[in-house]
Amino acid sequence: MSIKSFHPPVRTLMGPGPSDVNPRILGAMARPTIGHLDPAFVMMMDETKELLRYAFQTDYGLTMPVSAPGSAGMEMCFVNILEPGDKVIVCQNGVFGGRMKENVERCGATAVMVEDEWGAAVDPNKVEAALKSNPDAKVLAFVHAETSTGAMSDVRTLAQLAQANDCLTIVDTVTSLGGSELRVSDWGLDAVYSGSQKCLSCTPGLSPVTFSERALAVIKNRKTRVQSWFLDLNLVLGYWEGGGKRAYHHTAPVNALYGLHEALVILQEEGIENAWARHWQNHNALKAGFEAMGISFVVKEGERLPQLNAVTIPEGADDAVVRSRLLNEYSLEIGAGLGALAGKVWRIGLMGFASNQKNVLFCLGALEAVLADMGAKISLGVAVDAAAKSYR
Amino acid sequence: MSIKSFHPPVRTLMGPGPSDVNPRILGAMARPTIGHLDPAFVMMMDETKELLRYAFQTDYGLTMPVSAPGSAGMEMCFVNILEPGDKVIVCQNGVFGGRMKENVERCGATAVMVEDEWGAAVDPNKVEAALKSNPDAKVLAFVHAETSTGAMSDVRTLAQLAQANDCLTIVDTVTSLGGSELRVSDWGLDAVYSGSQKCLSCTPGLSPVTFSERALAVIKNRKTRVQSWFLDLNLVLGYWEGGGKRAYHHTAPVNALYGLHEALVILQEEGIENAWARHWQNHNALKAGFEAMGISFVVKEGERLPQLNAVTIPEGADDAVVRSRLLNEYSLEIGAGLGALAGKVWRIGLMGFASNQKNVLFCLGALEAVLADMGAKISLGVAVDAAAKSYR
Repeated sequence: MSIKSFHPPVRTLMGPGPSDVNPRILGAMARPTIGHLDPAFVMMMDETKELLRYAFQTDYGLTMPVSAPGSAGMEMCFVNILEPGDKVIVCQNGVFGGRMKENVERCGATAVMVEDEWGAAVDPNKVEAALKSNPDAKVLAFVHAETSTGAMSDVRTLAQLAQANDCLTIVDTVTSLGGSELRVSDWGLDAVYSGSQKCLSCTPGLSPVTFSERALAVIKNRKTRVQSWFLDLNLVLGYWEGGGKRAYHHTAPVNALYGLHEALVILQEEGIENAWARHWQNHNALKAGFEAMGISFVVKEGERLPQLNAVTIPEGADDAVVRSRLLNEYSLEIGAGLGALAGKVWRIGLMGFASNQKNVLFCLGALEAVLADMGAKISLGVAVDAAAKSYR
Repeated sequence: MSIKSFHPPVRTLMGPGPSDVNPRILGAMARPTIGHLDPAFVMMMDETKELLRYAFQTDYGLTMPVSAPGSAGMEMCFVNILEPGDKVIVCQNGVFGGRMKENVERCGATAVMVEDEWGAAVDPNKVEAALKSNPDAKVLAFVHAETSTGAMSDVRTLAQLAQANDCLTIVDTVTSLGGSELRVSDWGLDAVYSGSQKCLSCTPGLSPVTFSERALAVIKNRKTRVQSWFLDLNLVLGYWEGGGKRAYHHTAPVNALYGLHEALVILQEEGIENAWARHWQNHNALKAGFEAMGISFVVKEGERLPQLNAVTIPEGADDAVVRSRLLNEYSLEIGAGLGALAGKVWRIGLMGFASNQKNVLFCLGALEAVLADMGAKISLGVAVDAAAKSYR
């Protein structure tokens, strides 16, 4: 055996995540490792919590990054809030609602499913009906930005419904944080998790979370122990909230946290509302390009995410061949469909650092060239031109 | 709010981990992020698994890094192998046996504790007795290298006892992997977890694991679902073992895995037996230095770890002041005592890249200077000289 150092190809990442990482963040990750109890590290942790509060638009004290990917952040929310026998209303309009159901059941709780079509937003009317017929539900769980379909749900309205029915909310903001309007405190969300590798454009592996006082009270008054030691907030808090005297829980992923800190500094420099606006601007350009090519969106106008664009694969185009040609000839990654949408759609990410004019024009140009080469009736240049015009 | 980019101080990390990271690894982590389903990434994952098999000295097919710190690797072993009602014999001779007990109980299983003093190895006689009186025990769980005390237990003997009693083994090798002799296949261990940030000298945040066929059969024949979605091996394997068709489970921590790959390439270049020998050589030099200073080890000869040296704080020396002067005046981190040993010992790590002559001499010299300045009766230079001699 003689394996050499790995030198990855340089890609343009326009799939469902990870997205292109800002070189400043890669540089931050390569800084010298220090101890996870070092005073300098503790200061950086405090800054990271403050920066995360800004990203989430929250004033919740309990805001921090989980030392593992978004799926672990999801699990942290469910295992800390739920106890066996609890009932949860779970909205499913794509892959991630299904994963929530899995989490609920593994906690010994019951999931009442509210189903919407893949590609549609969660329907508030169905949610309201489910809340009425399940007055004993403890939690309403839903996804803000469905990465598997590109649909955005109306978090504010769903949260209001939950509050009116004395229900906590668990909200998946993996793909929305930093890319779409999200106001955790104003909207009164209770347990919110996200990921580092979507619109924050950090490397994957961390999951920012934030919890309301109401959620925290529920966690502190549990009758049973949290089933996960690693994700038990009562223990994790001893480290992240320990103030001067931090209790060792696990060794924090030091360099990954350097990266997240830098990603959040970049977001703060741009201003979060500017970041939201930039995602819309680039989405509009991409949309103009696709419309010029006659390629349609899966999600109807008004429910679309600007950062995750699911478009219908044009008739006659071979899904796998097109994606593989984009990867091999252009070093460009776009996403395949998942679940019910596999083989039917492409998912074009315009997330964080990758949400820029160059990527929009490059992606449209490359796609035009590949489709034309495969015999599609394409007027070359039309999509790129339409997108370029939208920036003027 | 205006928070700036974070530039950590340059430390020498000689605590219980993280240890100094080889600059090659930091460089690897800063390489461009690619997609977690990219063919180039999949190839790197396959190489990583092969390199991990070398590090663990195992031929087990199921060998991979968990996308989270060592505590999550520990939890993965327990939640996949245990079901409610199972019985586990847990050896405790420091902090981490206690954490194992927590894991057992949170799985709804029962822990039978075998206790040894903090600073002693696990006593095989006590284990044999516990196995005899608990013939229904499913698992024997123990720690190879107790990071909290510096004691090394005899994994081979303990595993033989377990096998003779038809018991699976769960073995913590967080601090031993890459630093102390460990032969997973030869010794017939069943579920083994480790960490990236000790003797592999990678950044913290990943947990290599390896499972025997026997363990895998138990996992595949479970009657109940694994309580953690994130750590459910049946799901994780769809991604890591999926061959040509990898199922999406979670987004892998791409850049952290670049770092681990590079750390393992470095280990392969050195040769694992050479790495084990180097840890002994530097331990012996440090030991010569401490003996010359009249500072004694907590663990008796023969049970000591070369990579984690717990020494008794000399009378009159103020624990916190000495450590803080080392940090502030020398940018040198050494570890405090944990649990029963808090305030009584220092823990000096010589792990991986940090296990080198320069660190040994620097640490002894700095410690001599600080202790002398604080009024201790120290013959300056004696410790450094004794250590230097040991290299000749």
